[in-house]
Amino acid sequence: MIEVELKGYADSKVFERVRENFKFLRREYHEDTYYQHPCRDFSKTDEALRIRIRRFDGHFEAFLTYKGPKLDEVSKTREEIEVPISDPDDYARILERLGFKEVLVVSKVREKYYVEKGIVLTLDSVEGLGTFVEIESMVEDEELVPETVEKLTSILAELGVKKLERRSYLELIMEKGGEHGAAG
Amino acid sequence: MIEVELKGYADSKVFERVRENFKFLRREYHEDTYYQHPCRDFSKTDEALRIRIRRFDGHFEAFLTYKGPKLDEVSKTREEIEVPISDPDDYARILERLGFKEVLVVSKVREKYYVEKGIVLTLDSVEGLGTFVEIESMVEDEELVPETVEKLTSILAELGVKKLERRSYLELIMEKGGEHGAAG
Repeated sequence: MIEVELKGYADSKVFERVRENFKFLRREYHEDTYYQHPCRDFSKTDEALRIRIRRFDGHFEAFLTYKGPKLDEVSKTREEIEVPISDPDDYARILERLGFKEVLVVSKVREKYYVEKGIVLTLDSVEGLGTFVEIESMVEDEELVPETVEKLTSILAELGVKKLERRSYLELIMEKGGEHGAAG
Repeated sequence: MIEVELKGYADSKVFERVRENFKFLRREYHEDTYYQHPCRDFSKTDEALRIRIRRFDGHFEAFLTYKGPKLDEVSKTREEIEVPISDPDDYARILERLGFKEVLVVSKVREKYYVEKGIVLTLDSVEGLGTFVEIESMVEDEELVPETVEKLTSILAELGVKKLERRSYLELIMEKGGEHGAAG
């Protein structure tokens, strides 16, 4: 399975249209802590290591996720290995002992919506960054990627999304921090 | 709680005496994979990172464990952070992507015996290394460590254990590999 994913900037009108047109699935609260490697510059190698704490419907889940470099220049396709973790504090302690350093925490509220079979849309309100819409679909065959990208793009366009964004929230916050001379 | 632990070399007579005198708890099969840090020499820093797969009574459990340097020159006391893991293969893949390299796998059969309240004894048959006995007790107060060490030592002596060993199985196998000019 290949994940086809597009992200765009969304204003309050896009949020309204999504809420009116699609079936609300759930609201999640994400707290993502990103780590720097002890001897490799992830911002240069285009990798990421993250502990995500996710709350929804009174539940609580945590995951450790490794993201490899993007595999081409166009899409966001990349290797992603994600494992559930039971005690995020203990995992964070192990990472720290191994020399991984916390880079920053990305907090967001994510609303999930059902678009149609196989297509899910999310409205993200990212602390300190703004509001975004993400749309994703899993396809079985690489040949189906172009038409899926086209379809997802047109859904976003219909919703009034004017600008797509390929960079991750982590990258956007880091760059924003850089502009203002802050350390993230 | 402080873990007081002693390990000694055990011949077949020690194994027999343990099996005759103490209550058998269970037999475990351990497969421990040790990792080298991408930019730190664990053999110099006296640290270890391990994935343990443990089978017993038809169950299967896995753990990721970080062991910090020993805190003094006499005992085996060290920081240990252990977390349960659900899918050892995915964890191993994340470690490999982060640059951790498999150093070696230590396989052993461990029989656990109940000695008395708070004291557990294990008979270890370590592949490629030999047979050992370990005895451990948890104490609440550091002041109790000397008398506990004395007590555990005398139990091992009564069983006929002649030589104690402070090095880990990993260290012993690494050193043995070195003697024979092999890479472990």
